[in-house]
Amino acid sequence: MAYELYYWPTIQGRGEFVRLALEAAGASYTDVARLPKSKGGGFEKLAKKLGSKQLVPPPLSPPFLVNGKTVVSHTANILMYLGARHGLAPASEAGKLWANSLELTVTDFVLEIHNTHHPLGGALYYEDQKKEALRYAKNFWQIRAAKYFGYFERVLTENKSKGNFLIGAKLSYPDLSLFQVIEGLRYAYPDNMKRLEKKYPRCIALRDHVAGLPKIAAYLASDRRLPFNQGGIFRYYKELDKKW
Amino acid sequence: MAYELYYWPTIQGRGEFVRLALEAAGASYTDVARLPKSKGGGFEKLAKKLGSKQLVPPPLSPPFLVNGKTVVSHTANILMYLGARHGLAPASEAGKLWANSLELTVTDFVLEIHNTHHPLGGALYYEDQKKEALRYAKNFWQIRAAKYFGYFERVLTENKSKGNFLIGAKLSYPDLSLFQVIEGLRYAYPDNMKRLEKKYPRCIALRDHVAGLPKIAAYLASDRRLPFNQGGIFRYYKELDKKW
Repeated sequence: MAYELYYWPTIQGRGEFVRLALEAAGASYTDVARLPKSKGGGFEKLAKKLGSKQLVPPPLSPPFLVNGKTVVSHTANILMYLGARHGLAPASEAGKLWANSLELTVTDFVLEIHNTHHPLGGALYYEDQKKEALRYAKNFWQIRAAKYFGYFERVLTENKSKGNFLIGAKLSYPDLSLFQVIEGLRYAYPDNMKRLEKKYPRCIALRDHVAGLPKIAAYLASDRRLPFNQGGIFRYYKELDKKW
Repeated sequence: MAYELYYWPTIQGRGEFVRLALEAAGASYTDVARLPKSKGGGFEKLAKKLGSKQLVPPPLSPPFLVNGKTVVSHTANILMYLGARHGLAPASEAGKLWANSLELTVTDFVLEIHNTHHPLGGALYYEDQKKEALRYAKNFWQIRAAKYFGYFERVLTENKSKGNFLIGAKLSYPDLSLFQVIEGLRYAYPDNMKRLEKKYPRCIALRDHVAGLPKIAAYLASDRRLPFNQGGIFRYYKELDKKW
């Protein structure tokens, strides 16, 4: 049975981390809300499914993945599930915990990136929190981005196995997620990333390696990959992408 | 071998979710940084450990748990590890994923609670973001708190097993975490909680049940339980605890 991914149909968002894992695994899946309404898709289908009492256990919000009777929600949780089923994580308990730890670090990072344009939350428009966004983004680029990238660079440096991987000598789902963060930041903060990337060559080597994986390259070139846009986590605002 | 928990010694913070699981399990553990310096504890020990190259894999930040050669970081990840070892989570794969999903919902909730007083991040004092905190807290109490409590109430209602548990008929670590969230909100937002609690009787019944568990009751009465204070996640500011 194919996986059913439920996520907002018009943005990469958090669902993209799941899409990348499904694509890297070569898994058969339906991105349900992206199907036309006539084929049982659309935003309405997602909303209806989310409110359904038949969905057990119930997710609080997208993304969630349905596989027969299994329902898994929260990006990091879905990735842990897929990682174990498709060889995208170590098989040992310690390895699984390490992959999950790295992914939860990505989760924290992604939320802070989101908060650079929405520090007061998603209920207010960007236009209603521009001043606050400037203050948040300043701290993000002066302190936080380096903290996260420095950590991932350290992990890559201390991994003595061959290849550009966070864990051992094999691709795992946190590699895909770090790739996505770099892609997203390049869209949202092109100027800041130009300066920052020089300091983290191993993170960039990982990004290049992931982009070149045949299944990922094919996905990125397909129309299954939505373009970045101003509705997702990574948004471009000229006034935020300044030299801090 | 006893577990070693590494966390800030003066606050409950995120470490408290781990402490509650260790206590409920009756596990032997050392809360390392809370030992006096003369016994190898203190803040300095935590800082030194965090920077150590001997810690493999390396955590980004506290809390982290050391058990012999195993190092686990991120609160939800540590709880998953402890849950599996001490019967504080279902044994099935689906049950483990569900427990993790609930815990990640708590993680999101806790971060939003933290942001009610620090929406622009921990690098700035509360005094430097009071206006922003008011705007964030307004949205939190008008929309977000009800979203999270409504979800947990729904989960408790739809769980047809006997007892006040989120999963099946047995205590699991998300129960302990939801207890802690309620305790913390009672400290930080006593007036708002008085109004809110009436709407979520099952959440409060869970809280009461957890508080009465012999091991938890003994812990809460001991000096191992730090009091809530103005350095943790849950902080009391009169101006934020108004009727929104």
